[in-house]
Amino acid sequence: MNKLEKITPLEQDFAKWYTDVVKQGQLIAYGPAKGTLVFKPNSYGIWELIQENLNKIFKQKGIQNVYLPLLIPQKLFELEKEHVNGFNPELATVTRVGDRELSEKFYIRPTSEVLFANLFKNSIESYKDLPIVYNQWANVLRWEKTTNPFLRSREFLWQEGHTCHSNALEARKLTREMIKVYAKFLKKYLAIPVVIGKKTSHEKFAGACSTYTIEAMMKDGRALQAGTSHYLAQNFSKPYEIIFKNQDNEYINVFQTSWGVSTRLLGAIIMTHGDNHGIVIPPRVAPTQIDILELFADKSEEVKEISKKLNKELSKKWRVRVDSTNKNPGFKAANSEIQGTPLRIEIGPRDLENKNVTIVRRDTLEKITVKIKDVKNLVGNLLDDIHENLYESALKRLNENSVTVFTYDDFKKEISNGKFVTAPFCCLDEAEVRIKEETGASTRCIPLKLDKPEKNRKCIFDECKKETNRYVVFAKSY
Amino acid sequence: MNKLEKITPLEQDFAKWYTDVVKQGQLIAYGPAKGTLVFKPNSYGIWELIQENLNKIFKQKGIQNVYLPLLIPQKLFELEKEHVNGFNPELATVTRVGDRELSEKFYIRPTSEVLFANLFKNSIESYKDLPIVYNQWANVLRWEKTTNPFLRSREFLWQEGHTCHSNALEARKLTREMIKVYAKFLKKYLAIPVVIGKKTSHEKFAGACSTYTIEAMMKDGRALQAGTSHYLAQNFSKPYEIIFKNQDNEYINVFQTSWGVSTRLLGAIIMTHGDNHGIVIPPRVAPTQIDILELFADKSEEVKEISKKLNKELSKKWRVRVDSTNKNPGFKAANSEIQGTPLRIEIGPRDLENKNVTIVRRDTLEKITVKIKDVKNLVGNLLDDIHENLYESALKRLNENSVTVFTYDDFKKEISNGKFVTAPFCCLDEAEVRIKEETGASTRCIPLKLDKPEKNRKCIFDECKKETNRYVVFAKSY
Repeated sequence: MNKLEKITPLEQDFAKWYTDVVKQGQLIAYGPAKGTLVFKPNSYGIWELIQENLNKIFKQKGIQNVYLPLLIPQKLFELEKEHVNGFNPELATVTRVGDRELSEKFYIRPTSEVLFANLFKNSIESYKDLPIVYNQWANVLRWEKTTNPFLRSREFLWQEGHTCHSNALEARKLTREMIKVYAKFLKKYLAIPVVIGKKTSHEKFAGACSTYTIEAMMKDGRALQAGTSHYLAQNFSKPYEIIFKNQDNEYINVFQTSWGVSTRLLGAIIMTHGDNHGIVIPPRVAPTQIDILELFADKSEEVKEISKKLNKELSKKWRVRVDSTNKNPGFKAANSEIQGTPLRIEIGPRDLENKNVTIVRRDTLEKITVKIKDVKNLVGNLLDDIHENLYESALKRLNENSVTVFTYDDFKKEISNGKFVTAPFCCLDEAEVRIKEETGASTRCIPLKLDKPEKNRKCIFDECKKETNRYVVFAKSY
Repeated sequence: MNKLEKITPLEQDFAKWYTDVVKQGQLIAYGPAKGTLVFKPNSYGIWELIQENLNKIFKQKGIQNVYLPLLIPQKLFELEKEHVNGFNPELATVTRVGDRELSEKFYIRPTSEVLFANLFKNSIESYKDLPIVYNQWANVLRWEKTTNPFLRSREFLWQEGHTCHSNALEARKLTREMIKVYAKFLKKYLAIPVVIGKKTSHEKFAGACSTYTIEAMMKDGRALQAGTSHYLAQNFSKPYEIIFKNQDNEYINVFQTSWGVSTRLLGAIIMTHGDNHGIVIPPRVAPTQIDILELFADKSEEVKEISKKLNKELSKKWRVRVDSTNKNPGFKAANSEIQGTPLRIEIGPRDLENKNVTIVRRDTLEKITVKIKDVKNLVGNLLDDIHENLYESALKRLNENSVTVFTYDDFKKEISNGKFVTAPFCCLDEAEVRIKEETGASTRCIPLKLDKPEKNRKCIFDECKKETNRYVVFAKSY
């Protein structure tokens, strides 16, 4: 690649800005089948760091990684009716091998509840075998009609946790614990603040008893569901006959949970931190944390020398990449920016005369002239600063764009302003469908924490005359 | 699980021994579709450590990880004829989504040459973009008729490297370099010695110009192909039109390589090191390196105390698991052995009276009584010793069971003795087929290194009257 194309300003056309950023940022290429993606090193590297860091957290919690098959026999899938109805229109089906028609058809997994159910059924005997807390890193397929890189593609990568417990209490507790693990992870590693809450019955996972979610706010005000944790109760363990003998020698169905985050998180990073120069990758998951740019190296041996020295020194602790091409300084800077590298160090002959180099922060684009000997000490602090700044900016935006309303008129106005709108709402599925038709907004969650909610306010749904204490966050969403 | 079933002695029935080991060792469960596997924590953990360590080596070499789609449009696959003919009978085909028949069919990738070709076609312009050295960790599907856990399953996990170069020399060099990387990796991490060589034309990868292989010897004398590296020349870059502009402004097709190792390696570990007590996992890829067994802890507070202390101390450096169940000592020991943990530390009240614990090596089953304070220093050495011992034993077996022959009678005798048989052989495909029919042996490779081969000896194939300097290793294989 020798030239960088312009990125559409995000104020002008957010959707176009997004697709420009994913393509120009060396993040993806489109796959040969519609709605499929190639994860290039700059995006797959983020995913690998998400994996690495989540795995550390999982390991501390005693979660064990396993790998289950890609294909689900049709008959096995169809035991849990709500689950199958939720996924059926999106199921890619293998019917043939070579020139032979198969007598039994197979679905490519859209999620693995039924595969885990089958495994658990055959491996659990007594309460001594419980709890089982497994996790799988895998690809899944859902044949989406409209697709969007990272956000909604036909194949995506994720982790899916699946657990079995001897009692409902323990399973419910883990369901809530995992959604908090995700919220903390997004804050600490991706610099993304979220609203934690419970899905309404209309929005919960097909087959779950209840679903918890973390909802992040994108720069256009729309919500992105960034992770979910489901309490499955005995909804799968009954049809799939996952039974154990309890301490009283009774045979009981296990209680289950499942939870996951996916490569959607890459979309969340882009739309939370990105700007008109491209993606901004939070330092702790940046495949390259520091770009070293050699400027006018053909005119100065010293540039190469200092570059080599700094690379050696910084690589011990951080992920460093050196641009030693003979492209011009402007191109190199723009290329580093468009790829979202948190820090770049420009080494040029003029700075070197004073034993200086220039460090540029990707988040603020601030330029800092610094003595070569001080670079190492400064870099660690700057990377932490960038993380903090990204998080604080996103949190400020989330707070400033979250409102509580009590009338349907205000509701409609604030939704069209692109806000997260909290409102008293007691109604069921049909009302949610109507509100979505009228405003484009869906229920995101019933937040776990709410600042001093007013009691007994009229439900926001026009036709409902009841008062309620249940507050729900609505927003337009991805 | 409360009881351990017996493992069939390997001398009695090797195939039965193998399936007993994979099931009893908590390595797998069978998936719901025929020929598919569940990788349980004890086997997936080995694969994760293989990934982690190979990734470190890849990173040092500048190899970049990417992820490409699972599905290949039928039309795209069919451009390279030899490739498609090689894979066609094993291709799982998606023809339907939900209730709709698809107008275009998709194959589930059996390997990703054509997907990478499509990516490269769209991202390479000039020699400045070369070389590209990508790697992918992925699941692939090949609808095998007969299946065997790890060795031949319909879905398996692997890494596949795919590269593009501006000239044949560089590509050929990388092909050979990667097979040596694999050989070194197997020695250093899996304690498995191999024969490195080139495949005959009959045995090479469908679509390759040449294939290099590493061949390991299993305990029954059969060969297992443990990794391959292919020089693809321009076989894919021509039909898939992967073109670059060279320094003379000419448009040329790139030169390519591909190379991979898979979860077959788990089978290689079992059949190289396993014994009648179960799998023996080489320490550097063992998910659990040390099992701490608390014996009679109900009768002694001190057992729990020392167990906790040792766990804390050893966990800083090694992967440790504690068995604090109230099962009997014999069960605990057998359970640790059957799961292949390299070392176990038995903590019991009697030893503690003398401030001792007992360490047991999984490879030799030797018991070592040792002062508690000396455990930490001893463990590191023991783990290294176990690795060395496993490697040396396997190497001795490989050497003792490799012979060179010059007559077809000797050839048949040695093959039926379960040896790796090196013989002068100059013939082509038909002769290989005939030899396999008559003896069960296939050509494994033309070894890169051979001790003083005798010149101009008659070809081993009965009907061939020529003399040759080409020596080929034959063996029965998995």
